[in-house]
Amino acid sequence: MQEFAIDTARPEDLPALSNLLAELFSLETDFAVDRDRQIRGLRMILDAPERGTLLVARARTGTVVGMVSLQLLVSTAAGGVSGQIEDLVIHREVRSRGLGSRLLREALAWGRARGCLRFQLSADLRNLSALSFYTRRGFRGSHMSVLYHDSGP
Amino acid sequence: MQEFAIDTARPEDLPALSNLLAELFSLETDFAVDRDRQIRGLRMILDAPERGTLLVARARTGTVVGMVSLQLLVSTAAGGVSGQIEDLVIHREVRSRGLGSRLLREALAWGRARGCLRFQLSADLRNLSALSFYTRRGFRGSHMSVLYHDSGP
Repeated sequence: MQEFAIDTARPEDLPALSNLLAELFSLETDFAVDRDRQIRGLRMILDAPERGTLLVARARTGTVVGMVSLQLLVSTAAGGVSGQIEDLVIHREVRSRGLGSRLLREALAWGRARGCLRFQLSADLRNLSALSFYTRRGFRGSHMSVLYHDSGP
Repeated sequence: MQEFAIDTARPEDLPALSNLLAELFSLETDFAVDRDRQIRGLRMILDAPERGTLLVARARTGTVVGMVSLQLLVSTAAGGVSGQIEDLVIHREVRSRGLGSRLLREALAWGRARGCLRFQLSADLRNLSALSFYTRRGFRGSHMSVLYHDSGP
């Protein structure tokens, strides 16, 4: 029996998930930690299960130790649905046990079952361990860089 | 009276839009031109108007000379809806007349009216004119680079 199970997130997981995002966003200099915002965003993903999923890795005790999200988009390049993967993070105390791979694999499977022809994600160019993690799992790097516009109220 | 109008795309515009995407994808080395795929993807965006929009610049004759798409996502960083902007392209014969700015401005307005707290897009790092275009219009560059996974059938 495996020590951790992959599972769909539940509303009661939201505080634990916001803690994980705080770990992730402290690595990614483009994003700031703001628990209220993170919980609001996570809840919106949970509330629209036809448009995306939020998967968690859970210890036998129930504790959430990892997460990933996938949202569906249309890609005109691929000519169909594509999956936007975000927020893959594993609690630092349980890294290097294959949980990231398992979460990513389950997210891809969820997307393929809903017709995804392609998946994309963005990673900080300076986060070499993330880039290496993804390329070893079939992702190819690109020359596309992300730009943001904070539209204000 | 302005020479060009910004308008929502219609199904009969799809062939013209696929021509514009062919122009765009021939600039962006990450993507390949495939008209059937492009028309399929564009039609899916038109068919889900609650999830995104496809705006066009149209000459008085009705000819489509530019386009942009925006799709809604949830951003856990922003804590709400964000707008994913793609496929902004202007026919080469009518560039430098402000049509790109007008399309982008209308796309942002469409998104803001639907609660977008943030917008993002990706641009080829080697496409300096695109990067300059977007940063002059309020977009900030980031260290986030896009990775793709072509999931296959």
